[in-house]
Amino acid sequence: VIPGQEEAVRTFKLTLAYDGTAYVGWQRQRNGVSIQAQLEDALAPLAGGPVRTTGAGRTDAGVHALGQVASCRFETGLDAAGLQRALNARLPPDIRVVDAAEAPADFHARYWARGKLYVYRVLNAPNPDPLARHIVWHVHQPLDAAAMSAALAPICGRHDFKAFQASGSRVPTTVRTLTIATVERRPWNGVLEGTPVPAGATHGAWLITFRFGGDGFLRHMVRNLVGTVVEIGAGRRDPESLWRILEGRSRRLAGATAPPHGLALESVAYGDGPAPRAAAR
Amino acid sequence: VIPGQEEAVRTFKLTLAYDGTAYVGWQRQRNGVSIQAQLEDALAPLAGGPVRTTGAGRTDAGVHALGQVASCRFETGLDAAGLQRALNARLPPDIRVVDAAEAPADFHARYWARGKLYVYRVLNAPNPDPLARHIVWHVHQPLDAAAMSAALAPICGRHDFKAFQASGSRVPTTVRTLTIATVERRPWNGVLEGTPVPAGATHGAWLITFRFGGDGFLRHMVRNLVGTVVEIGAGRRDPESLWRILEGRSRRLAGATAPPHGLALESVAYGDGPAPRAAAR
Repeated sequence: VIPGQEEAVRTFKLTLAYDGTAYVGWQRQRNGVSIQAQLEDALAPLAGGPVRTTGAGRTDAGVHALGQVASCRFETGLDAAGLQRALNARLPPDIRVVDAAEAPADFHARYWARGKLYVYRVLNAPNPDPLARHIVWHVHQPLDAAAMSAALAPICGRHDFKAFQASGSRVPTTVRTLTIATVERRPWNGVLEGTPVPAGATHGAWLITFRFGGDGFLRHMVRNLVGTVVEIGAGRRDPESLWRILEGRSRRLAGATAPPHGLALESVAYGDGPAPRAAAR
Repeated sequence: VIPGQEEAVRTFKLTLAYDGTAYVGWQRQRNGVSIQAQLEDALAPLAGGPVRTTGAGRTDAGVHALGQVASCRFETGLDAAGLQRALNARLPPDIRVVDAAEAPADFHARYWARGKLYVYRVLNAPNPDPLARHIVWHVHQPLDAAAMSAALAPICGRHDFKAFQASGSRVPTTVRTLTIATVERRPWNGVLEGTPVPAGATHGAWLITFRFGGDGFLRHMVRNLVGTVVEIGAGRRDPESLWRILEGRSRRLAGATAPPHGLALESVAYGDGPAPRAAAR
């Protein structure tokens, strides 16, 4: 208990960065350890009992986060900074609370989320990089960045993204508004830029970064978009095919699902209250 | 066997990148798996029997490599490119052969090495980054880059580096020639530069990169130099102390050994034959 700070029921907004490699995903599951379970296990002794947390996005197994947001509410004498320190002392090193703030009593990380930004990274090079193997998808066939960019250009806006939803998902609506869908390419100089690597390794090595921002995302939507666009970049589909797939509204038309380890939930945007219903997921 | 390529005794120069996290170091040891053992295990079926390899530098447990060089000699019909492909198909994903070349019959990765370049990376920020936790040393106290740079400036040249050698080491001479000893600092934007992270995480976040190049390095020399210079950066020693420690020639004068995971063997330089004896390690 912090002197001068009274025990009270408080709501917190926690911003988390994590390496998803070792986990079954954000959400608690029976078949393995989740980020949520680690967070709730770290919270319990601080709250003197079980605490339920809600995450803004349910990242899949192997997917990372730079700015996942979780909400929780419990009685405590800790302030936000104290909670952050106490959690980081208890959490494993692959999960860090990078920010903590007290939030309005009814703050809900999922229902209040107005937008999310995902980043997906491809190492397009002859050789994979052992130090980056958990955070980039290595694709050795040369990819045409202009073709991928052209393919993505028309898909921003409000559309039915059913073709890019994992088969078997059931949600009330598959309409989402995509506000950002970009791809950029720069020379790859190792996992921490500025590191020269042997000529054999850098020759023709590029980091291709996709970013997708929107009001909500269907299950596997980013990974299915990236998987399809990479097939376009490799010349196996033409750039216009992405739009045709979207219009076809069938998962079978889209390409393979890109692997989880290239994906990270970069940030979540909030307003002063719950998001409009159509955007809440 | 490649058509048109005859079975012959060939010497190869292999350039390796690896994530040292899971290994006891380069060199074969009884207490765990080494990079060398993984490489030799991958070579054996290709050579039809055991193959002995030599590494340019004996990286410690947890230390990485971007351009370690290994030599080996055995009878094969494979050319260098074929050997690289075959090895990468057999090696685990945390070890990659990034280049392979046929070398003169007497090429020896250690005795021919003229120089080595090591890189050591410090994440100087309030919060560690879970995605970079195996490749940077997280130091949360703010470090003075100018003081560290001033400390390093005079130590280039031919000196007795005994003060920075791991205690208990026995080598014929502790004199080495250091040709590069630099430190540079740039804002940290996540493990793959260009990735914005939440304000709470980036505020005051820097990547500090040390580089040390020379004709040879004593055991723990780079890590002891970095550990001492970081104490200078934190204001616990003055910049001139590094030179005094060097002159004192006693390990007890130097600072703590920096942890292994920030260190990587970046590259090894070769000439047309064995290095002059004084430089061979």
